[in-house]
Amino acid sequence: MSSPFSFILRHTDGCARLGEFHTPHGTVETPAFMPVGTQGAVKATRHADLEALDAQIILGNTYHLFLRPGDELIARRGGLHRFIGWTRPILTDSGGYQVFSLAERRVISEEGAQFRSHLDGSLHMLTPERAVDIQARLGSDIAMVFDECLAFPAERAAVAHSMERSVRWARRCRERLDQLRNGRVNGVTITNPGQAQFGIVQGGVVQELRLASAAATVNIGFEGYAIGGLSVGEPTQLMYSVVADTARVLPHDQPRYLMGTGTPEDLVECVARGIDMFDCVMPTRNARNGQLFTSEGRVNIKNARYAEDDRPLDEACGCYTCRTHSRAYLRHLYMAGEMTSGALNTLHNLSFYLDTMRKIRDAISLRTFEKFRQEFLRAASRLSSDQ
Amino acid sequence: MSSPFSFILRHTDGCARLGEFHTPHGTVETPAFMPVGTQGAVKATRHADLEALDAQIILGNTYHLFLRPGDELIARRGGLHRFIGWTRPILTDSGGYQVFSLAERRVISEEGAQFRSHLDGSLHMLTPERAVDIQARLGSDIAMVFDECLAFPAERAAVAHSMERSVRWARRCRERLDQLRNGRVNGVTITNPGQAQFGIVQGGVVQELRLASAAATVNIGFEGYAIGGLSVGEPTQLMYSVVADTARVLPHDQPRYLMGTGTPEDLVECVARGIDMFDCVMPTRNARNGQLFTSEGRVNIKNARYAEDDRPLDEACGCYTCRTHSRAYLRHLYMAGEMTSGALNTLHNLSFYLDTMRKIRDAISLRTFEKFRQEFLRAASRLSSDQ
Repeated sequence: MSSPFSFILRHTDGCARLGEFHTPHGTVETPAFMPVGTQGAVKATRHADLEALDAQIILGNTYHLFLRPGDELIARRGGLHRFIGWTRPILTDSGGYQVFSLAERRVISEEGAQFRSHLDGSLHMLTPERAVDIQARLGSDIAMVFDECLAFPAERAAVAHSMERSVRWARRCRERLDQLRNGRVNGVTITNPGQAQFGIVQGGVVQELRLASAAATVNIGFEGYAIGGLSVGEPTQLMYSVVADTARVLPHDQPRYLMGTGTPEDLVECVARGIDMFDCVMPTRNARNGQLFTSEGRVNIKNARYAEDDRPLDEACGCYTCRTHSRAYLRHLYMAGEMTSGALNTLHNLSFYLDTMRKIRDAISLRTFEKFRQEFLRAASRLSSDQ
Repeated sequence: MSSPFSFILRHTDGCARLGEFHTPHGTVETPAFMPVGTQGAVKATRHADLEALDAQIILGNTYHLFLRPGDELIARRGGLHRFIGWTRPILTDSGGYQVFSLAERRVISEEGAQFRSHLDGSLHMLTPERAVDIQARLGSDIAMVFDECLAFPAERAAVAHSMERSVRWARRCRERLDQLRNGRVNGVTITNPGQAQFGIVQGGVVQELRLASAAATVNIGFEGYAIGGLSVGEPTQLMYSVVADTARVLPHDQPRYLMGTGTPEDLVECVARGIDMFDCVMPTRNARNGQLFTSEGRVNIKNARYAEDDRPLDEACGCYTCRTHSRAYLRHLYMAGEMTSGALNTLHNLSFYLDTMRKIRDAISLRTFEKFRQEFLRAASRLSSDQ
């Protein structure tokens, strides 16, 4: 049994790629941005909003869902899609990143990661096999391999050691998935038999290690490949350069996913370097903190200068927030601590991100991506002082 | 100059009344429930939701808006409707209730109420004239007179003294509004020249004082009459009895508004006693606390029994929440502290309240209100143990 996952590369414009991938829950056009739905909900939104904004896929966090409400409970509900009432594709991460960033008292060994829950201190063990089983119960359309995540900066030897372990873990993940697909594992309810699995390239900012990781990961063989371990504090230009060098050696006919990135400018710049998929908490988290992305740059809505500003947040935006409300009202809601502030701001920021992805796809399709890119970066820099 | 406000009583069924009132921002069918939009937003909702749920009027709180963002700022935006982007009718309270329940270090005199802001401790004075001026700047369709609010229980002498002061304050409010309407006050921007003003009947639970207050308030003459000072801790049956006795002596051809009430059962029971308008934070506040109203009674969604309950919250409800999600998911969102929990729960509770009002109006129209009332109360009691 193999996955029905498939990727079609329709068109390129320079290194930028226009394509689509097919999953058991539908098709996703690429380049794609995946809103982050950590606990089975994209914060401060409704599924119907995401659909109306043309979010074609969302991301769920294995670490959070494993701890609460639990992958077995979700499997009994028929999987994550049915549990949360979302009918389009879902990608789940492996839990690795959260174990390394959120969990307490981690003990890492070749076997896996032992840690205590950030919620109640309870003791847990995540291994490559366990991460695969959990995601099989969740039934996401794309599962990620369990990898080790290092902080930046790290010594080259530590990066090499960690990258090599991640490759070994990736192999164990693939073997476990094959066993699951072949019905050779008991006690794991597979809620989405068509689930695909992506490998993750590690290696920090060391080109040689990135290339070695890419080669070894591609050698194992996955339905797609992610670039992990970036956007962790390294300089932006260095990140872009690692992305370009890594994307170049990944299979042309499979999707490339840059994990946890980034600003709108990052999306445009990394599409220009051959990336097909993104996820990031920035549009949703920043929205709740009053930081808004507009066609003319960033707006910090708590700034006093907006107190009597009757204009919409973004004249060029057609989202509900911009159609209905003024900057003055949005500032009032933020200052008054109204929950509606987070919801309206999130709606706008996600609209901006998803609209940007649509414009990127249109530009690649018309072979005008480079022109779009220059204009986008120029406009985005205009309000950059409003931080 | 007088108000274009008008009330038409279409139909009665026992003491229950079917009618409508007309305001500069449109018509409201009665009996009506007004969702509470304290700070210019009904918490955890969007205006478009409220419109889709058939909320024909919302309530704004003068005390909160006066302190933040300020009535003068709102007047410069063109009034509360334009500031918040809500095009349907708005009723504002006078700020009295909040001065007595929220503000710090109150000093009450015949002149008015001096108090410190609960936000920053700043010193303010609200008088009947000031409360009228602020509401003129806000430009609500219905303004309320400034009244004194006593806690329950209170000595009869204190109730009498307070009721008499409220009558004197009501007279000053009406005189101030007449001066504003006749252009005899400088420095107050009137953002809604068609604003109506309602008087408020006080008198605690003492029938004689209620009757005296009603007679004196009606004698001043307002576009409508509210019953204040109830739902402050008195027994429910006593509240119903005061409502019945007071409604009976109010003008037949003007709307009657019971302030700050109540449960769904209270709405039905007080419509049965001649009330046309209600407001209450219960559907919105309880929603955020996980307490949900359904056609079979109350559901406390954090209850462990819902952890694996795949049924919708209310089988009989057609709201987005009930169409899209299970009890299990709603419980998960609540337990996980997701903002979406408050939003989805609020949508349902408001849907339930506004749907109940529609059913009440239909039943009065069909002269089957008494039958509806009996069935409603029977169904509501079914899950009453789920607290």
